[in-house]
Amino acid sequence: MKPIVQCVPNFSEGRDLDKVEAIVKPLKDQEGFTLVSYEPDKDYNRTVVTLLGDPEAMIKPLLAFMKRARDLIDMNKQSGEHPRMGAIDVVPFIPIQGIDMETCVKHAHTLGENVADTLEIPIFMYGEASVKKGRKRLPNIRKGEFEGMNDKIKEDQWHPDYGKPSIHPKAGATAIGARLPLIAYNIDLDTDDIEIAKKIARAIRGSSGGFKHVQAGPVYLEERKHVQVTMNILNYKQNPIYRINEVVALEAKRYGKKITGSEIVGLIPKDTIVRSIKYYAAIEDFDVSEDNMEKLSTLAKQYLHFRDFDLKKIIEANIE
Amino acid sequence: MKPIVQCVPNFSEGRDLDKVEAIVKPLKDQEGFTLVSYEPDKDYNRTVVTLLGDPEAMIKPLLAFMKRARDLIDMNKQSGEHPRMGAIDVVPFIPIQGIDMETCVKHAHTLGENVADTLEIPIFMYGEASVKKGRKRLPNIRKGEFEGMNDKIKEDQWHPDYGKPSIHPKAGATAIGARLPLIAYNIDLDTDDIEIAKKIARAIRGSSGGFKHVQAGPVYLEERKHVQVTMNILNYKQNPIYRINEVVALEAKRYGKKITGSEIVGLIPKDTIVRSIKYYAAIEDFDVSEDNMEKLSTLAKQYLHFRDFDLKKIIEANIE
Repeated sequence: MKPIVQCVPNFSEGRDLDKVEAIVKPLKDQEGFTLVSYEPDKDYNRTVVTLLGDPEAMIKPLLAFMKRARDLIDMNKQSGEHPRMGAIDVVPFIPIQGIDMETCVKHAHTLGENVADTLEIPIFMYGEASVKKGRKRLPNIRKGEFEGMNDKIKEDQWHPDYGKPSIHPKAGATAIGARLPLIAYNIDLDTDDIEIAKKIARAIRGSSGGFKHVQAGPVYLEERKHVQVTMNILNYKQNPIYRINEVVALEAKRYGKKITGSEIVGLIPKDTIVRSIKYYAAIEDFDVSEDNMEKLSTLAKQYLHFRDFDLKKIIEANIE
Repeated sequence: MKPIVQCVPNFSEGRDLDKVEAIVKPLKDQEGFTLVSYEPDKDYNRTVVTLLGDPEAMIKPLLAFMKRARDLIDMNKQSGEHPRMGAIDVVPFIPIQGIDMETCVKHAHTLGENVADTLEIPIFMYGEASVKKGRKRLPNIRKGEFEGMNDKIKEDQWHPDYGKPSIHPKAGATAIGARLPLIAYNIDLDTDDIEIAKKIARAIRGSSGGFKHVQAGPVYLEERKHVQVTMNILNYKQNPIYRINEVVALEAKRYGKKITGSEIVGLIPKDTIVRSIKYYAAIEDFDVSEDNMEKLSTLAKQYLHFRDFDLKKIIEANIE
């Protein structure tokens, strides 16, 4: 079996669609991996690219893609809602199947060294690929953003892992790393009271004593007229979504509210669903096959209230 | 108003009740503080003592009590379910009213110095009274237990805070400290399968991704013939017991198991019960008065399955 990683480069252009097309072109129709999607966001002025496949096959096309982003984006003129420090802001490698974290870390370092050498962009290694203290979390590295980076990078403790301690004048700096899949999971509640979502978010998120790997906040959805608990799950093995789903339900109950739906933003590994469906299978005593993705998808809609969900949201459904 | 602390010495004898009586005797009928309870546990082979009152008045009787424990317990022959490193394993001071943490820390150091000088037991200061790095958490200090302590204490980084770097040959070593009220909360399951308790403990404890302020482990109760998830809750405000109770119940469900009871070891602040009963009051729509401790106690038995619980377990019921 070929090793498969998910690679999710984020670059700092989401408005000029001609530029976006030009930048992603080197990633199209390549051998060994698939360009699953690229999603430009106007508010963020940022595009999130999703690749799936053999990481070795990705390195050269990624270099060509990054060169284009470097040449077409001028960070001195760029602005948007999303924090950023470079034209190519961040490139994470995520192990999906047939590959371990250690190997992803190696590929991240290979790419990092190459980018610094050939594109003259200073590279910070982050996540599991971080080497220096205080660089595991991307927000720590990115603090100060493009505008503050030229001073920050000259400080001893913020010298880059590859490249010189000065930013590229137009393209800034880039973080390259390896991490576990991150699940973007939102739960809908049958209320427009943001205070309820805020209290529930506080009960479940790690920073206020809840589940360690859960980041959570409240949001009011103007179009849908209800609130949501919006979450990132940084480790779905230790914090499986069925458990989050159940705890949100039991907290909502005290306000007389219910979960009406939930959504996954982006892709999720099949294992995320398997782990949760197994819980319901155990308590309701039915069998579940890990191989039947159609069935898993149906069960996820039934037990986890997934809306707007289809097979293509499951990473493995894109690579088989 | 006189300052009131809760002091909770734990000693390593819970089977020989004559010895237990002899050891606690110096704590009985003293001026300035009350011996609220002492609870020998056969499975743990350990007794938890609870004192309430003026910490200054406690020091001399505590020294007499510790001398007896030292002389009557031989750790070379002691065994039980609970981890331990000494005949007197741990002595925490907990501020309750009219006293701050800083003053509790001072009393802890006074006792520590005295014990090392007069009883020749090496003392580790822990919790808020810790001085050296890595000694805040008791499990860190206790790792290796009595059997490993004689080697460990000789390492530079594990020299005791008071006394010589060698254990007392029969009584081992003691941790003395100051901390916030900690809830010792155990949940009974209707199974003798320790693996189930282990999995549930892993799901809820902070160290493996669960609730941040929860320490949890599995234990098999020989006498009662069932397993328990045994917990310390270090912050009952962020991690209220109703939520832990509910999550343990939902995790147990996947193994077809139920919660049959739960117990509070030692005392709890009234607020712990109030916060949890309010949850059940909200979902079942009944009123709850914070002042009626009898009623709170009844509701706690009903909704949190407390067994062997009475009013005297509520700190406030002992000092009013």
